[in-house]
Amino acid sequence: MEIGDKETLEDLQVAGLKILQKTDGFRFGADAVLLADFAKDTPSEKTLDLCCGSGIIPILLSHKTKTSEICGIEIQEDVFETAQRSVMINGLSERVKLTCGDLKNATQIYGKRRFDVITCNPPYMPVGTGVTNPLDTKLIARHEVMCTLEDVIAVSAQLLKQKGHLMLVHKPGRLADIICLMRKYEIEPKRIRFVHKGLGSEPCLVLADGAYKGGRELRIAPTLYLYNSDGSETEELKRIYER
Amino acid sequence: MEIGDKETLEDLQVAGLKILQKTDGFRFGADAVLLADFAKDTPSEKTLDLCCGSGIIPILLSHKTKTSEICGIEIQEDVFETAQRSVMINGLSERVKLTCGDLKNATQIYGKRRFDVITCNPPYMPVGTGVTNPLDTKLIARHEVMCTLEDVIAVSAQLLKQKGHLMLVHKPGRLADIICLMRKYEIEPKRIRFVHKGLGSEPCLVLADGAYKGGRELRIAPTLYLYNSDGSETEELKRIYER
Repeated sequence: MEIGDKETLEDLQVAGLKILQKTDGFRFGADAVLLADFAKDTPSEKTLDLCCGSGIIPILLSHKTKTSEICGIEIQEDVFETAQRSVMINGLSERVKLTCGDLKNATQIYGKRRFDVITCNPPYMPVGTGVTNPLDTKLIARHEVMCTLEDVIAVSAQLLKQKGHLMLVHKPGRLADIICLMRKYEIEPKRIRFVHKGLGSEPCLVLADGAYKGGRELRIAPTLYLYNSDGSETEELKRIYER
Repeated sequence: MEIGDKETLEDLQVAGLKILQKTDGFRFGADAVLLADFAKDTPSEKTLDLCCGSGIIPILLSHKTKTSEICGIEIQEDVFETAQRSVMINGLSERVKLTCGDLKNATQIYGKRRFDVITCNPPYMPVGTGVTNPLDTKLIARHEVMCTLEDVIAVSAQLLKQKGHLMLVHKPGRLADIICLMRKYEIEPKRIRFVHKGLGSEPCLVLADGAYKGGRELRIAPTLYLYNSDGSETEELKRIYER
């Protein structure tokens, strides 16, 4: 397996898993690792990761769950191609099936009502907000250029089986949008968890889990803290990273 | 001032404030105290407390803010009458104006666009859920018999000035309803704070602040913990109770 000039092969420090990343492109962050952990306990025979990027979430879910088929879709060809090689490096081609395509066409690609779980670590920034990254792949990964939050939720409502779960990680400031869009597309918010860097701080991320045509029963999970007051990792963060 | 047979005069331990409560009726809880604290820093010339019950929130806000007029509306006549006497006992009749009436008629009582801040500690339980309390006043205070969450939010959207704030305390399981109903009536969620008894537990309450015709910018505040792991009160709870 060739590793390109502008690529690094990173050891995930989990079950010997490795992942290729472009040195000048969008790199996965803790967000994806936290989402995979948040999603791992919901039983699923078939899972789809929207905006799968480097493939980090499908690769982690292959280790953290018994799900037999884990799909991923990524719109950017060079990112997809790198992810595809990561799947091969990890010997996961049997269980992890990646596709290069636009998630807005996902029902044509996969058919309707096929997935028990859908995960997505979508672009966080609405177009026109924040600093626009001049490098195209980072722009697409960070801003809602190619897909909006509404696109993600609308297509998930088509792809999920009855009572199937959509799990998102996003900025807490978008919580009202997430909840209202989920309800608009009959995905009922079931579980929300806030991620804070430390005690006394505002959350840096929110994890949201909704069930397609699920009943109204929302749980807010205990707060997830990443760091102790001395800067060391919390026990829960260590558990998530399997350290 | 007569104190009735089935009444107690409680010392709020704050600035010498006292409050009359029925011994067999609904009694205010920490919810109201937390909501008054959550609301106190938003400047207001005229505030309204919906479902004011014993008058606890108007009485606390008279101490915690400089608001010149604090109104309260309560539908139950005997509860209203007790609250009215508490206002007199505390010498607050100039600033705190209570009305016995149905909040669904509040625009007829007060007129539209009159309030900078509206607070409400509404009945938590939808009708038909949970154990129905046989005593009527408790039933009305706890279940959505006389008013629903939607009634509270709909009338607030009529009563609030532009950019005026509605602040609610509720069960966390109703968060999706709160957010979606606020948006339905053009009250934009601006600030949410979860209240947990202790670290590692799910929240027991949520505080929500929305602005009528406000811009989209939601903040999730740092988690509010009530008790330390040894069962003692946290510094923040002591600050709220001014102990």
